[in-house]
Amino acid sequence: MSAVQQNLEAASAKYSSTFTQGHLALPPSKQYLVLTCMDARIDPAAAFGIELGDAHAGASARDALRSIIISEQLLGTTEIILVKHTGCGMLTFTNKDAYEIVEKNLGAEAALELKERNLDFLPFPDLEKAVREDIDFIKSTKLVPDNVILSGWIYEVETGKTRRVV
Amino acid sequence: MSAVQQNLEAASAKYSSTFTQGHLALPPSKQYLVLTCMDARIDPAAAFGIELGDAHAGASARDALRSIIISEQLLGTTEIILVKHTGCGMLTFTNKDAYEIVEKNLGAEAALELKERNLDFLPFPDLEKAVREDIDFIKSTKLVPDNVILSGWIYEVETGKTRRVV
Repeated sequence: MSAVQQNLEAASAKYSSTFTQGHLALPPSKQYLVLTCMDARIDPAAAFGIELGDAHAGASARDALRSIIISEQLLGTTEIILVKHTGCGMLTFTNKDAYEIVEKNLGAEAALELKERNLDFLPFPDLEKAVREDIDFIKSTKLVPDNVILSGWIYEVETGKTRRVV
Repeated sequence: MSAVQQNLEAASAKYSSTFTQGHLALPPSKQYLVLTCMDARIDPAAAFGIELGDAHAGASARDALRSIIISEQLLGTTEIILVKHTGCGMLTFTNKDAYEIVEKNLGAEAALELKERNLDFLPFPDLEKAVREDIDFIKSTKLVPDNVILSGWIYEVETGKTRRVV
């Protein structure tokens, strides 16, 4: 067993020994969805005020359309909070860069698989613009009804602050 | 401003007032990736022992291939922890159900968009099997090198415990 796996088992034993939230229902109690990055420096629960059972958290809007529809149609979400953040890896490369890195590190077969999957890494060069574009994407799809409340935010990894953009 | 947005602003003001982690680097310090569900009842940081800056968290393997490659090739991840959980919404419907719900609730235009996007909601009827299949998927793709350490787990929302499956 790896050190990471041992750490998980120890954390689980400790966490479950005082766990009292086994009664929570599947639909989030506050009926909102938080879409944010998988960045290790973000603690959505603390930084955005989400309590266990409150809300569902996913990735970015284009990538998370599947999660948005499930949350909306099957779990009754009525509001979406979209948060991107400073220092995001997505600001640091282009799709071309990523394709070249895969080919260099993993070889021709992997590069071919990437091409066949037509995988878009969804990088963005401008943070505020990316928040606006993600919100516009949600507005434009017929799969999210117009009465869902939308807002877009930027979390600053340097200060821990979250500010509204749109 | 909605109540949810007000809550986020208040949480942010409180969180950032005592924030001391502005120095953390982009690459996760412990070089592992946690793939788990967006379910509101899961607190990955506490339940799986992830500290701020430790690891990146995403969704499920097929859906998160983009995140896996970024984490691996650009951020130096060397281990993947995959966690699915009991009481998951994905156990409760089929793609056919979801398509019918969208058509009923959002109308013909939305149903057409869903079809055009060829969206797979990735539901699964058997939890343990789904964990094994996701790990098999990661093993099968050339886009994740063979030396990445893999393990698959089930988190029990009823008890707070996480147990290893594969």
